[in-house]
Amino acid sequence: MGPKRLVDAVLFDTFGTVVDWRSGISRAVAEFAGDAVDTDEFALAWRSRYQPSMKPIRDGDRDFVDLDVLHRENLDTTAAEFGLPLAGDPSAADHLNRAWHRLPAWPDSVAGLTEVKRDFIVGPLSNGHTALLTNMAKHAGLPWDVIIGSDLTRTYKPDPNAYLRTAEILRLPPERVMLCAAHNLDLDAARDAGLRTAFIPRPTEYGPSQRHDLHATSAWDVIARDITDLASQLREHAS
Amino acid sequence: MGPKRLVDAVLFDTFGTVVDWRSGISRAVAEFAGDAVDTDEFALAWRSRYQPSMKPIRDGDRDFVDLDVLHRENLDTTAAEFGLPLAGDPSAADHLNRAWHRLPAWPDSVAGLTEVKRDFIVGPLSNGHTALLTNMAKHAGLPWDVIIGSDLTRTYKPDPNAYLRTAEILRLPPERVMLCAAHNLDLDAARDAGLRTAFIPRPTEYGPSQRHDLHATSAWDVIARDITDLASQLREHAS
Repeated sequence: MGPKRLVDAVLFDTFGTVVDWRSGISRAVAEFAGDAVDTDEFALAWRSRYQPSMKPIRDGDRDFVDLDVLHRENLDTTAAEFGLPLAGDPSAADHLNRAWHRLPAWPDSVAGLTEVKRDFIVGPLSNGHTALLTNMAKHAGLPWDVIIGSDLTRTYKPDPNAYLRTAEILRLPPERVMLCAAHNLDLDAARDAGLRTAFIPRPTEYGPSQRHDLHATSAWDVIARDITDLASQLREHAS
Repeated sequence: MGPKRLVDAVLFDTFGTVVDWRSGISRAVAEFAGDAVDTDEFALAWRSRYQPSMKPIRDGDRDFVDLDVLHRENLDTTAAEFGLPLAGDPSAADHLNRAWHRLPAWPDSVAGLTEVKRDFIVGPLSNGHTALLTNMAKHAGLPWDVIIGSDLTRTYKPDPNAYLRTAEILRLPPERVMLCAAHNLDLDAARDAGLRTAFIPRPTEYGPSQRHDLHATSAWDVIARDITDLASQLREHAS
């Protein structure tokens, strides 16, 4: 661990950046509902309730609850909207809700993280809670060094405390921590909190007609093609 | 992850059970002090202040502070006792204090943890804080899935909350979590908290004349020779 490295820890947004939630959720909906609903549309609709559901917690209008709780509330609403009954099989509905623990990695994620891990502490910096992120890592083979979930920081990105408390738990100053994300807004907030930033595009995260986050919208510290490319660029920085 | 596994997570005491603190500290003291002190004696004396220093926190008489703070207080006292001046080089003294972040693994630890990790969530259940345990894992190559330090549970073993809060963060009932330790007292407290237990002996942890914890003193769920043997026995349980 030489003194020339840009940072000590490289942390990753997970949903969308490391794992492909749309495919994973679509498949889980298909397992639950067969062809009773358009599974891709269902996945997008379920996910669309994600940011609004965290807002009252970020605003201090609701005590912190974890994503299992929020995902389940959002699943109930989405299922009602699509006319999909959940009550008939509570254990299957619970299994569906926990599909967010079992999302598949993007093709470059495991190899890329393994590379980054050679020189840096790697971990998620995600709105997922520790148990969800641990299960996700076991399922997808993500080689994290450490997992600090939102249940430990008790807040949700882009609240500045989500970034700052994570750095504090690692006993690192914010500028020795880098966030890698496929979402420019997440990086905006990380930079405001004093972290270093890396952007990678995930142009099909929301499907073939995605129009946002196709490119970096700011001069992030690193802009890479994917996590493997990020590892190469970080190595060049250090040499 | 089949239903027949004894538990979902196997967590490990670290100091003494996974890493050899005596050799690591002795070497760090030699780097700092040369032959000015008996480094083995110094390591044992420094460590002997460990349990007493946590007591006021466990008893509620002192707010939680992490092991970097306690180790430093104990280092100052031990150095004074041995007539070793620390003040001359604060940065070297700080580096010495952080030797607890750089302890070497016992010979079977990495291979054994890698085996256990195939079937179970593996992590430390240690009085170390998350940053210390993360640095230790990077240094020694410990392949943890997740690291929940004492800074997150805000208490020290054998306080029951140290075990219970860790299980809670993993969203597992206590009986789905196993603690593996080389210390019978730690396992006593874990069992009282509802966890499963595994004992492995580390008969030279305190040096060649160690007299305690040479054998299991109770009928723990598993009694193994080392972590590799633990992995084999857990696999037999599941088959």
